[in-house]
Amino acid sequence: MKINTASAKGTFDIIPQDMNLREWMKKTIIDTYKKSGFEQIETPSIENLDLLTKSEGGENLNLLFKILKRGEKLDLSKENLNEDDLCDLGLRYDLTLPLSRFYTNNREHLPNPFKAIQTGWVWRAERPQKGRFRQFTQCDIDIMGEKSEIAEIELITTTARALQALSFKNFTVKINDRRLLKSVILSLGFKDEEVGSLCISLDKMDKVGMEGVKKELLAKDYDEDQVTKFLASLEDLKGLDEKTLAKYNIEEDVLQSLKNVIAVVKNQAKGQYDIEFDVTLIRGMGYYTGQIFEIVSNEFGSSIAGGGRYDKMIGRFQKEDVPAVGFSIGFERIFQMLKETNFEVPESVEKIALIFNTNEDINAVLEWANDLRSEGKIVSVFPKHKKFSKQMNNLQKQNFGFYGLCSNGEKEELTSLSQE
Amino acid sequence: MKINTASAKGTFDIIPQDMNLREWMKKTIIDTYKKSGFEQIETPSIENLDLLTKSEGGENLNLLFKILKRGEKLDLSKENLNEDDLCDLGLRYDLTLPLSRFYTNNREHLPNPFKAIQTGWVWRAERPQKGRFRQFTQCDIDIMGEKSEIAEIELITTTARALQALSFKNFTVKINDRRLLKSVILSLGFKDEEVGSLCISLDKMDKVGMEGVKKELLAKDYDEDQVTKFLASLEDLKGLDEKTLAKYNIEEDVLQSLKNVIAVVKNQAKGQYDIEFDVTLIRGMGYYTGQIFEIVSNEFGSSIAGGGRYDKMIGRFQKEDVPAVGFSIGFERIFQMLKETNFEVPESVEKIALIFNTNEDINAVLEWANDLRSEGKIVSVFPKHKKFSKQMNNLQKQNFGFYGLCSNGEKEELTSLSQE
Repeated sequence: MKINTASAKGTFDIIPQDMNLREWMKKTIIDTYKKSGFEQIETPSIENLDLLTKSEGGENLNLLFKILKRGEKLDLSKENLNEDDLCDLGLRYDLTLPLSRFYTNNREHLPNPFKAIQTGWVWRAERPQKGRFRQFTQCDIDIMGEKSEIAEIELITTTARALQALSFKNFTVKINDRRLLKSVILSLGFKDEEVGSLCISLDKMDKVGMEGVKKELLAKDYDEDQVTKFLASLEDLKGLDEKTLAKYNIEEDVLQSLKNVIAVVKNQAKGQYDIEFDVTLIRGMGYYTGQIFEIVSNEFGSSIAGGGRYDKMIGRFQKEDVPAVGFSIGFERIFQMLKETNFEVPESVEKIALIFNTNEDINAVLEWANDLRSEGKIVSVFPKHKKFSKQMNNLQKQNFGFYGLCSNGEKEELTSLSQE
Repeated sequence: MKINTASAKGTFDIIPQDMNLREWMKKTIIDTYKKSGFEQIETPSIENLDLLTKSEGGENLNLLFKILKRGEKLDLSKENLNEDDLCDLGLRYDLTLPLSRFYTNNREHLPNPFKAIQTGWVWRAERPQKGRFRQFTQCDIDIMGEKSEIAEIELITTTARALQALSFKNFTVKINDRRLLKSVILSLGFKDEEVGSLCISLDKMDKVGMEGVKKELLAKDYDEDQVTKFLASLEDLKGLDEKTLAKYNIEEDVLQSLKNVIAVVKNQAKGQYDIEFDVTLIRGMGYYTGQIFEIVSNEFGSSIAGGGRYDKMIGRFQKEDVPAVGFSIGFERIFQMLKETNFEVPESVEKIALIFNTNEDINAVLEWANDLRSEGKIVSVFPKHKKFSKQMNNLQKQNFGFYGLCSNGEKEELTSLSQE
């Protein structure tokens, strides 16, 4: 019986051609981030289940991959087993929660402020669909320990530079502030503890529309009048108009900071990308406490980066709060976009195939290969096939630019494969 | 209540300093591999449990991290639950089994022969101890589709070059052949199906010694006389002496191939490393079918790479067998060695801190930062602290080479921090 050789549901294999593009993307992004003083770190893929389940992961908590206990810890004879009896670890569903744990755990080794780069796999047991996977790459920068808005400005402009380096031209940064939204929500008579839940529902606007959000809020037992007013206020607020904003008790410094970030980023963008206030911008996570942002590709009509300030998360792990802001690039989406537009990775190194005739030629051909490799060339060594012209055709298909034949210890001149 | 912020048992966080060394190692290895015509691929971290449990993973199967089923598939009300009822996925325990699945699944997109590079995390629920982790990096090259010993030669010499690029000088390649060992075992009256099990026990020689191996074989119910003869034969065979070898019915082509690989690699090594036959070399996995190899650092007295030929694994996934050889670098061990010897990563880029005085200076300081970044410098931007000299001390500690102050939109000259 042959075994199923497909990758597990919702996951994907990466063939060399795709890997080239992904590695180029990763290098391009990380090089840009490093120039802005960010430093790479990494956390384990598996975390204690306690850490994950007690997080503010919202809907992601329903999508956790949980790992079975092992050895004596696993007692299947117990009655009324639940998942907590069975599992003690889980796969991380994002890089932000692990970063906060990491920061607390390693603070003595980290500079202050700490500017982190993270790229890595995360896992969510989503229903697989086009462009949505169960294992996917996240690519984040975060600044911990900087309370001033220079953190927001650096994150936005650095992320924009990374997108430009990835060849994106036509994009818009959207910005909002959770506190602004919170003021609006509170001014309409909702309670403090309802803000998170309202935001989570509102975030589904682009998927289920205004009616869908209304339906979900009513299902959550909110008062219909309040909900209607709330949704109407969103229309009202577009454009940061001061008179309108005055109606909703929005704090002056929240407003000033938003305006300042918008002005500075606009100045830095030099007209090559846009930044605009968007009161309907929510971002899913319940943990955001201040400004939130998203970058939309106008060309592809889709979000390609998102982030925001989360000043209260690290305080859950240690005595003091530490201000924190993060920005995450939509790596998988960008990969799909570049792939679909047949983007070509800059690749200049010549691939050379060296063919040897008999086993007696091996030492000579290996010397030759090493000489060419030390000149920076990519060299593969192959035994000569009986069907030589078929072998040459295959090498051409595999993008070898030249071949060289080694026969009786003699090296023939390299021959171009593209001219054959 | 504060949450435990340590990483999960047996796993580790990677701080920037360690990450720099690891990333340099990875780049150095991959660049060497690429020059020899190998191409990067990647497989998911999670695989269908069926694939993992039906593999020849030997003891690794006892160390699987299994993932709980989700949603309706998980039925906790069933009586006499076992792990297969509860789990449908597992974390990969190596990169070789996933590669074989990958090769079958993606064959139409791959060249023939296919030379693969894989680096990635693998997971084993081992008892954690110094240098042994539950999540660790593997770093493999494999050649699929090449039956001649040029595959072995290219893998050994390429791996040796990677180790040299990692600054290793004093190492020895040990080589053996499973078929040679098999001939010895069969000539002593063991059965064909006992070979794998004997090899697995023998592989523990360096951990439990000759007596420990003997004990384990007796516990496996092998005949004591046979076991004693078998262990004695290992001493007998050291040195590839033809007269001795003749006693054990070793096939001529097995012997010739071993001698040829040893001669060619010796010639390529140019005296900078060694290769020698070692009949006691086993390598743990049951799937090896031909030559097996290991590289030992004489300086550190420890194995730093291992691999071998496994011509029968891909045939478990598809109709035809495909010849395959792999070589894996001990990434974590090498990382520990380099770290313990305070190895310094070649790092030439200057780190510059730009300090701005008031919010009015932000645009000017950001322009300055971007100019320096486009010259290739690493630049971080910070607001000026009230305690300026303390801030400077911190920047020095964080290895910033220069700082620049921006005040009232005016840029001061960059000042060296090392001279302060």
